[in-house]
Parts: sequence; structure tokens; C-alpha cells
Amino acid sequence: MTPVARSLAGRGLPRVPPVQPAAPARPTASAIPPAESGEELRDRVELVLSEFLADQAVVLGEVSPDCAPVLDAVSALLSGGKRLRPAFCYWGFHGAVADVDAATEGGVVAAAAALELFQAAALLHDDVMDDSDTRRGQPAAHRRFAALHTERGWSGSADRYGLAGAVLAGDLCLAWSDELYTRSGLEPAAVARGRRVFDLMRTQLMAGQYLDMLEQASSAGSGVDGAVERARRVLTFKSAKYSVEHPLLLGAALADAPAALVADYSRFGLALGEAFQLRDDVLGVFGDPSVTGKPAGDDLREGKRTVLVGLALQQASPAQVEVVDRLLGDPDLDETGVAALREVLVDTGAVDGVEEMITDQVDVACTTLDAAAVTEPAREALHGLVVAATRRIS
Amino acid sequence: MTPVARSLAGRGLPRVPPVQPAAPARPTASAIPPAESGEELRDRVELVLSEFLADQAVVLGEVSPDCAPVLDAVSALLSGGKRLRPAFCYWGFHGAVADVDAATEGGVVAAAAALELFQAAALLHDDVMDDSDTRRGQPAAHRRFAALHTERGWSGSADRYGLAGAVLAGDLCLAWSDELYTRSGLEPAAVARGRRVFDLMRTQLMAGQYLDMLEQASSAGSGVDGAVERARRVLTFKSAKYSVEHPLLLGAALADAPAALVADYSRFGLALGEAFQLRDDVLGVFGDPSVTGKPAGDDLREGKRTVLVGLALQQASPAQVEVVDRLLGDPDLDETGVAALREVLVDTGAVDGVEEMITDQVDVACTTLDAAAVTEPAREALHGLVVAATRRIS
Repeated sequence: MTPVARSLAGRGLPRVPPVQPAAPARPTASAIPPAESGEELRDRVELVLSEFLADQAVVLGEVSPDCAPVLDAVSALLSGGKRLRPAFCYWGFHGAVADVDAATEGGVVAAAAALELFQAAALLHDDVMDDSDTRRGQPAAHRRFAALHTERGWSGSADRYGLAGAVLAGDLCLAWSDELYTRSGLEPAAVARGRRVFDLMRTQLMAGQYLDMLEQASSAGSGVDGAVERARRVLTFKSAKYSVEHPLLLGAALADAPAALVADYSRFGLALGEAFQLRDDVLGVFGDPSVTGKPAGDDLREGKRTVLVGLALQQASPAQVEVVDRLLGDPDLDETGVAALREVLVDTGAVDGVEEMITDQVDVACTTLDAAAVTEPAREALHGLVVAATRRIS
Repeated sequence: MTPVARSLAGRGLPRVPPVQPAAPARPTASAIPPAESGEELRDRVELVLSEFLADQAVVLGEVSPDCAPVLDAVSALLSGGKRLRPAFCYWGFHGAVADVDAATEGGVVAAAAALELFQAAALLHDDVMDDSDTRRGQPAAHRRFAALHTERGWSGSADRYGLAGAVLAGDLCLAWSDELYTRSGLEPAAVARGRRVFDLMRTQLMAGQYLDMLEQASSAGSGVDGAVERARRVLTFKSAKYSVEHPLLLGAALADAPAALVADYSRFGLALGEAFQLRDDVLGVFGDPSVTGKPAGDDLREGKRTVLVGLALQQASPAQVEVVDRLLGDPDLDETGVAALREVLVDTGAVDGVEEMITDQVDVACTTLDAAAVTEPAREALHGLVVAATRRIS
């Protein structure tokens, strides 16, 4: 049982009036901004999230203690993660302002933490849509709910129970991300400026996810010619904008950053975001499962139409195309099949090609960052995030 | 193709800068509030929704014209519906204020319309979770996406494509409901007051949905003793609060209504909400499919543990209990099975019992409404909604 669920179970279910004013998120930061290290920032984000979930535990407990498994699933998912999106939001803000008071600092951390709840929603629903077994090295939420169903010997389909539980947990995270963002405690004008980015981020991510599944389903008939271009379009909306550009622009909007800095953030963010996702694509095929937390070859079993795959198809011999057509997207792909696909990705030069793209995009990001009118602590932190996002092994 | 999707397809995909300030929702109402009839209000809500979707068509079109089916699914779903929740919100507001200017009137209609987007999200995900075939007389969204997959001869599983499309469409509606609410154009202080209700509504609805599926799965082992009580708990959070009380309280919060009126709205809303759902439960078993838009007996096939079923089990003979245990929740239940279950529900007196409960709750609602310090147009309109919600046949 997670700490939050324990606190839910332990509470005596206080009677809360039907509509109790939600307490504004308490500023959790000390008065010494900005965060001195990535770890310090992660701790602050963690604190905001655990306080927020403790508040929601009260709301759910008022409905019924039987809701505890939903909060457990959310807490378990939120206990992992690199917190990259909050970091981009936080440094996007601090890149534009030199000094902030403690209340604003706490508000920025809360708004940044809201991105982590949004990411949790996206992951919960993504795992349902892809029917994935694991997430961050643990069973995916829908598998947890299905296991609960089986353990208790309940009636009906355990898989369907699992699916429904994870859909609802994701819906809660989606609503909660918005609630935490709004309750961040920042000035209303700042919240309103940031909301435009927040709204666009949500719509574009979901559109990008739809394109991703469309591409997986329809690519067989679309030919190899546009495969790289289509994969990059998915990558832009599903990942580059969502993981890096929009968090940075959210921070910039909260700070009311000048247009020139916003433009630099966009350029930096899109380049780094592309590199980040390309690294993810390589790790999805060649990463060490004990480090990535995902089984080897899962991206291949799901038939993900990545830039890596697109580049391979462009250069592939007919025999190599046949291997890809036969094996990519086979849900029962075994180790031999994974090895055969890996061989095609290496032999066609696709892996080298992707590594070259990563290097190019990292160059664009770093050059843009060096020239940007950004505060020095932010420049240093963002350089650190470039390394974290692209040279990682998980 | 829906009008909105057509407008999406027809647009030349204008280049929109990465983060363009969203235009505030235009006040769509004339300067003569409040709405003179339910139909007039429905038309105003319709207009807000279609303008909002047209804006989102531009955002989605910027990602790709391939996103059109997602908007089609949302538009198709939104084209139906009784608009009860927006009506409760609207009259909750107008019950507390005598005169409003045209901008405020437009803002209230927009905030009320946001509830319709939230309802669309709930329905889209509900149909995925229940694996329902139809919604509002049309194929459920996940079936639409699956049919698209089959029509185009795409690769992979059509059902999985359908599921993913509907999950994403629901996620969009969830994000959009919040976006429309925030962009309503009302004073920031009013938006902030209402948000507390909005947030509580979302969390409690999802918690109620979780309890609903838990009850369906675990009721076999829970005995009949608490069945009615447990069914009422689900009903309270999944339906009574969500469908009536919270919309009314949202309107009250937007109007900054006095505490006494808020308390009356709660009492009225919970009573009417319970009657509304009890009517729904009866129609789910005995309703005319050509009017309800749902196949006869669907609630029985899904194994819904309603108050109706709980009452029947409390009064049932061992032979009748056996019929319920054997048939309720059987996905392949045929007409004979439906008839057998109906017979138990009638013969045990459960149907009469539910009708009596509806009458009692309607009495409470009407008595409360008559005594409440509410404006006359709102009192009249809310009385009309009592009838619409409880004497309906669909």
C-alpha cells in the first residue's frame, strides 16, 4: 500500500460539506530560489504531488474507502519518472526572471508539478491503448486492476475491470492536473497566460497520439516514401512539443517572458524534443530492459512506426523490407524476431542515421541556448537537461 | 461528414503560430435573458458548442487533416442529448439573480455548455468501459473507429483501434470542457468560485464510476443485505450529484448565491437527481429501444447493480434469486432471459418500490423548490425540468 493510500485508509472519513472550498496548494519551497540541483527540484515537485494527492484522498474517502485502489495506482505511477517536463517548465520560468518571492516560487513548482499529473494521465491511457504489460518497471495500471479482480475472485472479466480502472485513473489525473495547475497559487493573470499553452499542449498531444495509432494501422498501405516525414510529424506533436517545447513555453508564459526568448525556447525545445524522442526510439529497440523498465522489443511488437523504422525502410533491400513487413507489429514476436529486426535497423544504416539526427538536433539546441537571453542558472540547468534527455540509457 | 468536420476538411490549414492566444468564447446570447424556453436555451448551448468545436477544428487541422475522424466522433455524440446539465447550471444561476448583462448571460451559457463536453467525455469512456454497441441511437464511438479501421482495410486489430480512438476522443472532451469553462468570458472571480464545484464534480463522478464497476464485479460475494444501500451510494455520486446537484451548484457559485439558496439547491438537486437515475434504471430494463436509443435489456446484460435490482433481491424467493444470479450480467442474454428478469423485477414488487421512491423524491424536490428563495422564471423552469427528468420515456 502506498503512503497516500495508507493515509486514505487510516482517515476516519471526515464529513466534508458538499462543496468545500479547495485549499490553495501550499507553497512548499524554501525562500531560496531557484533550485540548486535537479534533485532538489525533484524533491519539491514530489512534495507538491504528495500533498495534492493527500487532499484528493480526503475527497475520494468521502465517496468511499473502496476507492483506495485508484489512488494506489496513481501514486505508484507518480513515484517513478524523470520529472523532465516539470524541470523544463521550471527553468523556462527561471530563465526569464532573476528573482522571485517565495510564494511565486512555490506557485511555479506547483504549476510544473501539474505537468507530471498530465503525463500520468497520458501514460495510463497509453498503456491501455497499447495493452502494455509494464510501465516504469512495474505492472501497468490496467494489469494491477485486473490482478486485484483475480485475487478477490470477483465476477466478470478481469481484463475489462483492469481496463476500466485504468481509464478512470487516467481521467482523474487529467482532471487533477488541471486542478493543481489552477490552484498553483500564482497570480490569476499568470495562470491565464499559461493556460493558453496548457490547453494547446493537451489538444496537440492527443491529436499526435491519434496520428501515431493511425500511422501504425495504415502505414502498410502508405508506402515507404513518406514514412520518415509522417513519423517526424507524429514525433513533433506526440513528443517534441509535448515533452520539451510546451513545458518551456508554459514556464515562459507564467513569467511573461519577452517574445524573443519565447522564440528561442521554441527552437531549443523542438530540437531537443526531437532528439529526446529519437533517443527513446533507439532505446525502445536496443535499450537494456533492466534499465528502461520495458521488455526488450516492445516497440517492435507494438509495430511503432518510428523515424528509425522509416529510415530503415527507405534504405532496405527487398529482403529486408520483407523482414520488416513480416515481423514488425507481431504481438508474439520472440527473441529471434527481435534480433532479426535489430539487424535490419543496423545494417540499413538507420541506427547511424538516427544517431546523426540526434547529434544535429542537440547542436541546434545548444547553439540556440548559448545565444539566448536567458538567466545563467537556467542556461546551466537547461544544458544539463540536454544531456539528461539525450545521453540517457533509460 | 459533420458540419464541423466539413469545415475542418475545407480549411486550407492556416499556419498558426506555435502558441496563439485562444480567442475568448464569443457571447452568443441576445441581450434578453433569461431564455424563454428550454428550446431556446438548447439552441444557445448548441451554438456555443459548434463555435468551440470550429475553433478546435483549426487547432487539430494544424496538426493534420487526418484528425478529422476524432472531431467527427465528438460532433456526432454532441449532436444528441437532452442538455439537462447545462439547463440545471443555467437556471441555478438565474435562480439567484434577477438581471444580467449580455456578456454575463453569454458567459453563463458557455460555462453551462462546458458541462455538455464533460458529459461527452464521460459517455465516450463509459461506452469503452462497458463495451457498449450504441449511444443515443447511433453506434458508440469506439465502434465507429473500429468500422473506419475495417472499411479502410488497415492492419492490426479494428477493436483495439476503436478503443484507442474513443479513449482519445474522450480525453479531448475532458480537456475541452475545462478549456470552454475557463474561456467562458465570465469574471475571473466567478470562474474561480465555480471551479471548486467543477473540480469536485469531476473527482466525485469518476469515484462514483469506479464504485459502480466495483459493485458489478464484487456484488455476488457481498450478499443482498447492503445491496440497496450500495446501489444508492453509486447512484448518489455517479448520477444524482453529477447530473443535477453539481450543475445547479455550479450556476449558484457563478452567481455567488447566498448559502440558504445553495442548501436548497443541494436538497432539491439530490432528490431530483435520485429520481432521475431511478427513472433511468427503469427505462434501462423496460424502456422502448426505439425511444431510449439503447437495445432492450442492455443494463441487464451489463449486470448493472441498480436500486431496482437490489430491491428485487431483498424480496426475492430462492427461485427468483437463482434467476437473477444466473441471468444478470450474462453478455449473451436473449429475449427470453430479458423477459425472465423483468418478471422477477415486477413480481417482487421492485418496480413498484422504485416508482414509489421516484414519487417521494419528486415530492421532496418540488416542496423544496416551492419554498426556495429563487427567482420566478427559474422556479418555473426548474419545475419543468423535474417533469422532463422523471416523467420521460427516453
